[in-house]
Amino acid sequence: MSEAPHLTFDLDKAGMSNGHLVVPEGADCEALSLPVFSFNKGEGPQLLITGGCHGDELEGPIVARRLVEWLPEAQVCGRIVIAPVLNPPAVKACSRNTPIDGLNLNRVFPGRSDGSVTERIADAVSRTLLPWADTVFDLHSFGLNWDFPPSSTTHPIADPVLMAKTLQMAEAFKLPMTLVWEHPGSQGMFDTLAQNQGKVFVCAEFGGGTVSFDAIAIYEAGLRNALIALGLVEGKPDRPTFRHQKVTQTLETRRSSDELKSPSRGIFEPRCSVMDEVNAGEIIGKLYSMDLSTADAIDIRAPGTCIVYAIRSGAYVDVDEGVALVARPVNPNH
Amino acid sequence: MSEAPHLTFDLDKAGMSNGHLVVPEGADCEALSLPVFSFNKGEGPQLLITGGCHGDELEGPIVARRLVEWLPEAQVCGRIVIAPVLNPPAVKACSRNTPIDGLNLNRVFPGRSDGSVTERIADAVSRTLLPWADTVFDLHSFGLNWDFPPSSTTHPIADPVLMAKTLQMAEAFKLPMTLVWEHPGSQGMFDTLAQNQGKVFVCAEFGGGTVSFDAIAIYEAGLRNALIALGLVEGKPDRPTFRHQKVTQTLETRRSSDELKSPSRGIFEPRCSVMDEVNAGEIIGKLYSMDLSTADAIDIRAPGTCIVYAIRSGAYVDVDEGVALVARPVNPNH
Repeated sequence: MSEAPHLTFDLDKAGMSNGHLVVPEGADCEALSLPVFSFNKGEGPQLLITGGCHGDELEGPIVARRLVEWLPEAQVCGRIVIAPVLNPPAVKACSRNTPIDGLNLNRVFPGRSDGSVTERIADAVSRTLLPWADTVFDLHSFGLNWDFPPSSTTHPIADPVLMAKTLQMAEAFKLPMTLVWEHPGSQGMFDTLAQNQGKVFVCAEFGGGTVSFDAIAIYEAGLRNALIALGLVEGKPDRPTFRHQKVTQTLETRRSSDELKSPSRGIFEPRCSVMDEVNAGEIIGKLYSMDLSTADAIDIRAPGTCIVYAIRSGAYVDVDEGVALVARPVNPNH
Repeated sequence: MSEAPHLTFDLDKAGMSNGHLVVPEGADCEALSLPVFSFNKGEGPQLLITGGCHGDELEGPIVARRLVEWLPEAQVCGRIVIAPVLNPPAVKACSRNTPIDGLNLNRVFPGRSDGSVTERIADAVSRTLLPWADTVFDLHSFGLNWDFPPSSTTHPIADPVLMAKTLQMAEAFKLPMTLVWEHPGSQGMFDTLAQNQGKVFVCAEFGGGTVSFDAIAIYEAGLRNALIALGLVEGKPDRPTFRHQKVTQTLETRRSSDELKSPSRGIFEPRCSVMDEVNAGEIIGKLYSMDLSTADAIDIRAPGTCIVYAIRSGAYVDVDEGVALVARPVNPNH
């Protein structure tokens, strides 16, 4: 019989310590050792930071790793546990899903101890890292194929008190966008599991495109702002500059109408930038046949007054492939 | 016997016309029809603009297509022929090489009429589009995985007169970087073929990362500057703003020492931005094992005083994978 998932060190130990979360072996894969860093300064918020759930979103692991450098100096209270790489096989393969079983780690929570490797990772995280945390930051991003602003996101939560607390926490990142994201499939998400246990869970969607030095600096600033808001770190929050602007906006999406899809195959040309406000009927992008003739060009237009918060990189796209995502400012009475 | 490669319309026709370059069928693939646009205003420079040689570099096709919109109004003399998509199968697959035969179109020039599809494309371009041109702009980019400034590039050319003319043409784009690129493998490149025929050939390397609206605007401005310099279009050249700066620099590389490679497998973190000047020994990036422990971290340092002109997106990289490219200002006595 295989061993149970376990940590190789004691999270209750004072000060900085590190080791691994051991995900037991199974029929499909040997045991995995996920790196874990713990910073324990006693009473105060109990924060879990996770990254590398999807292997093609490296902002999270890198920013989490940078945090490990300066946290010992900066932390004033509470406990912060950082697991920068939840899914090493996916990171190695630079793939969203785990290459071994093809599963999306963020759709199989709480996982299964007797399941395939992705389910065993979820089970190990659910059983060892999640229970003691009152707040979770899960570091994601939009990957290379999309332009997307550095953001903190959450989903609509039935409990209004938890919704308000979560939104307030998300806004504390002071990133260019805070997004309340009505998501079609929340089944098996880490968010849902944590929220069902009454925890504050914020997903950082740390942007799209190249993982550059400048991008990483913005993401690190956002995370630092959130730690300051929690009182874990002293300092003054600083709204990072993104493309010449120091702006933050809180937006929300509607499930049914806010993804614009490619009406046919062709070369997609983005015709606006992320965070642009557009009016109903304004052109967001163009789609050309491979022939590039004007006769075939299709305008992709805004469905109403909205803000374009994500736009696909110019590329050949398939029919029904998402090319833009739009949202609107959160209703103040929300 | 299959037909010869041919154009479906007459390039000598006055005014704007368009049609296709037909690449004959072969054993591996049916005939291809590459879109071609011609703008003929009589005497003057004879310019060929090509894009979509590599299917994961969509800046070229999109910017070339945008040119088609405003060129009829703007052109004052000469002839401009635009072939925005040289390699439709690669563009459809979003892949650098042609998926059918696995070949890199920019390594098989002048091609073969009885070869595989990539060789037949090269043969068709060499025989029908190249002969009448005195200047060629081939629109490339660095793809999604690298941060790279919008650039015009050339390679060292043995003939000093052609070298000087080519460098002057490249600098006329007024993009953030003009690069004289000492390339390890120039065999079969479109550049080499055209230069051996005495033509001015400039490769636009239109940047890396997301193909966004803002990026496309910079690239289009660069191409417009070059058309103004040739006298094909009237107007005042405008140095585009790239990341808050209106700077242009002319750099050169050395073949043997200017690519920094990953010394082992791991998570690469970029620690500088493109166009940053660094001194010998300064950290350009960090490489972490999957464990992310400090003990394993490897600093990737500048080999001398240089400018980092390309840096890999943060990602898991393999041993010996390129992570940064550096260059130095062109020697004024060049």
